[in-house]
Amino acid sequence: MEDRLPDTAAPQPKPLRIAIAGLGTVGAGVIRLLDTNATLIAARAGRPIEVVAVSARDRSKDRGVDIARFAWEDDMTALARRDDIDVVVELVGGSDGPALALSRAALTGGKGLVTANKAMVAHHGLELAQLAEAAGVPLKFEAAVGGGIPVIKGLREGTSANVLAKVYGILNGTCNYILSTMERTGADFADVLADAQRLGFAEADPAFDIEGVDAAHKLAILAAIGFGTRIDFAGVRVNGITQVRAADIAQADALGFVIRLIGEADVEETPAGPRLLQRVRPCLVAKGHPLSAVDGATNAVVAEGNFSGRLLFQGAGAGDGPTASAVAADLIDIARDEVGAPFSIPVAQLAAMPPAEPGHRTERTYLRFMVKDRPGVLAEITAAMRDGDVSIESLIQQGRGHDAGEVMVAMVTHEGQEANVSAALALLEGSDSLTGEPLVLPILPL
Amino acid sequence: MEDRLPDTAAPQPKPLRIAIAGLGTVGAGVIRLLDTNATLIAARAGRPIEVVAVSARDRSKDRGVDIARFAWEDDMTALARRDDIDVVVELVGGSDGPALALSRAALTGGKGLVTANKAMVAHHGLELAQLAEAAGVPLKFEAAVGGGIPVIKGLREGTSANVLAKVYGILNGTCNYILSTMERTGADFADVLADAQRLGFAEADPAFDIEGVDAAHKLAILAAIGFGTRIDFAGVRVNGITQVRAADIAQADALGFVIRLIGEADVEETPAGPRLLQRVRPCLVAKGHPLSAVDGATNAVVAEGNFSGRLLFQGAGAGDGPTASAVAADLIDIARDEVGAPFSIPVAQLAAMPPAEPGHRTERTYLRFMVKDRPGVLAEITAAMRDGDVSIESLIQQGRGHDAGEVMVAMVTHEGQEANVSAALALLEGSDSLTGEPLVLPILPL
Repeated sequence: MEDRLPDTAAPQPKPLRIAIAGLGTVGAGVIRLLDTNATLIAARAGRPIEVVAVSARDRSKDRGVDIARFAWEDDMTALARRDDIDVVVELVGGSDGPALALSRAALTGGKGLVTANKAMVAHHGLELAQLAEAAGVPLKFEAAVGGGIPVIKGLREGTSANVLAKVYGILNGTCNYILSTMERTGADFADVLADAQRLGFAEADPAFDIEGVDAAHKLAILAAIGFGTRIDFAGVRVNGITQVRAADIAQADALGFVIRLIGEADVEETPAGPRLLQRVRPCLVAKGHPLSAVDGATNAVVAEGNFSGRLLFQGAGAGDGPTASAVAADLIDIARDEVGAPFSIPVAQLAAMPPAEPGHRTERTYLRFMVKDRPGVLAEITAAMRDGDVSIESLIQQGRGHDAGEVMVAMVTHEGQEANVSAALALLEGSDSLTGEPLVLPILPL
Repeated sequence: MEDRLPDTAAPQPKPLRIAIAGLGTVGAGVIRLLDTNATLIAARAGRPIEVVAVSARDRSKDRGVDIARFAWEDDMTALARRDDIDVVVELVGGSDGPALALSRAALTGGKGLVTANKAMVAHHGLELAQLAEAAGVPLKFEAAVGGGIPVIKGLREGTSANVLAKVYGILNGTCNYILSTMERTGADFADVLADAQRLGFAEADPAFDIEGVDAAHKLAILAAIGFGTRIDFAGVRVNGITQVRAADIAQADALGFVIRLIGEADVEETPAGPRLLQRVRPCLVAKGHPLSAVDGATNAVVAEGNFSGRLLFQGAGAGDGPTASAVAADLIDIARDEVGAPFSIPVAQLAAMPPAEPGHRTERTYLRFMVKDRPGVLAEITAAMRDGDVSIESLIQQGRGHDAGEVMVAMVTHEGQEANVSAALALLEGSDSLTGEPLVLPILPL
């Protein structure tokens, strides 16, 4: 009698084996998510997603998740060399340094890479995508933009059949929290920022957020995917929100607007070829616009396609849960083998598009001046507007609620060329009537 | 000397060859989109997407696009038998009949299938998905829900790592157009419907839309993907918007709400196992809720994941451009070979979940009665509420603006069990004080 083969269960699908570098709140969140939703994830991914190894600065720190069951690497780049790993999840942060070294090592070593690192993708995304394409491994970064909102997927796949007229949105939760809190409480910027820092909605060093750099990272990534261009972070024109006063928000409100930090990108056809305009600016947003209702740390992105029309993607822009959700969605896509060119088209085909010069573009603008309370100042400002060919739609001068001897002059212009506003402001440069830099906020079209 | 090989260009990638069945506005829109955005689509898809053959009822009709360049089939099922076709695009409509015959033939014949047909997917989606899985070919239906909004993708891939607490949204553009127009103009349902029909926002036979059936089709599809359950269209509890009066919208407005037709689904754990609740109902939506700002024919879907938090997908819910955008996105996914189980997990693993009985659930409710203008009616209604254990938060009786001798009584209840409201209404059944059926609208939680 022949030996019978031993009873075997049905062949188990091979797990997707991952390593996690960086065990801050997001790293711990990813582990918690993979634990909590393991059954569902295995069903949707077609196989289990299994954490094999981790690395972080401090092995012994209590993170609320058990990491003793995973292999540990003191040197995080060693994760990229392990034979028992399919994908490295980079959650270290920072555009260069260890995050970049690990990412390069992972991709050249034939591992897939999932990252939440917007600064690194904005600065080195093309290089990394090329490494991924050369090695035939996946590179995914859904969590780099808009936290838990599947907006990279939305542009890469959802609007893939469309020429986009414009991509824009609220890309930084800290700024949006500050602006919408100023709006609700009437408090001034510095006070709300301090509160936000106490509550954990703003970093101890908030510069990256409030100066608009973080939003610019994200915008550069969205623009590359949306318009098929090479990432050009250096080409983003960036203004932050530090100059916005409570009085501006009150003025905007009286005019039917809220103030939001908006990142926007479009492509302009010029006689010299197409040009990419990318900018991050606080804007006046009419209360009827879907972005006006986006409060707190929420993010939202609008994509306007030539067939889809206007699409809105909205959700939590940060936080360990939403970010972990996006990281895990990338992992499921990889486990399912539903992945392709990270920037929607291969890097070699992305257009190297010079930045657009927006001076000839037209928009309505909110202008605010803090001036000395003395005769003739209003005449000086309005003369400059006239000489710059800026047409004033409405103007208010307000004396109360400012420093002694200081008056606020705020106006909304008719639609006119941006260069005209710049010219008018140049005429006022150095004027000792002004007690500070004027604030220029465009009005977002409905 | 050896012959030199002839100069050859780089090998061209094989096009994705498609057939289109149904050349109404959407079919013509797909052809227009594939023409207009051909270069971009070829770049993103990695290869051209080429229409090879078409079929429709009338070959000679002017559709604004040139179809003479495509092969023509009088019998649309013949498209499924052509050797020169990779994917059939079904844009015929109707849950059964020719659309279903074609779809079955395409999948069993080893062709991929892309469809915009929500009725067919709601009724036969599992059978079609099984055919697709058996043949190893793609089945995609992004255009079946939410027009141009990538919400199927959003649930299948964007929130794939999440257990969803709830999926809900505005799924029918016609109803939303009617309700938001009633809101804006103060006009009554019948008048706005007639206008909508004249303007092309409502069908000549609007029953499918205004009775909530179309929204129920879409909800059943979303629920299957979001909760991993077998599609259960028959299990959707459906109320349409035909009973909503201008006076209800005015009352809701005074209370801080708008009225929207909401489809919502969730899974409830019971001692007997999980139960799927699916319903389509007009609801009061607080003005602060993101769905309250969704006007006109716009659609919007909210998914609440246990890690992602609340995500919102919004855009044009219908129209040839948006629908074509979704169809073409599916085709690009197929051309890229980024496809998997149509319902996120294989059909065999979808749970057959019985429908939930919602009676014990609690909600706040808006109740409106049209009653005879005579003494004692209010006492009769409030007694019924008391006997049904329904606690009234606010009540208004309004005599003006209705038929002679008719008075409106509207109230908002405190949060209480749905069964109590039903019990109270049962006590009033047959009462000759009421001049019509009471209207019961739940208040959507913020």
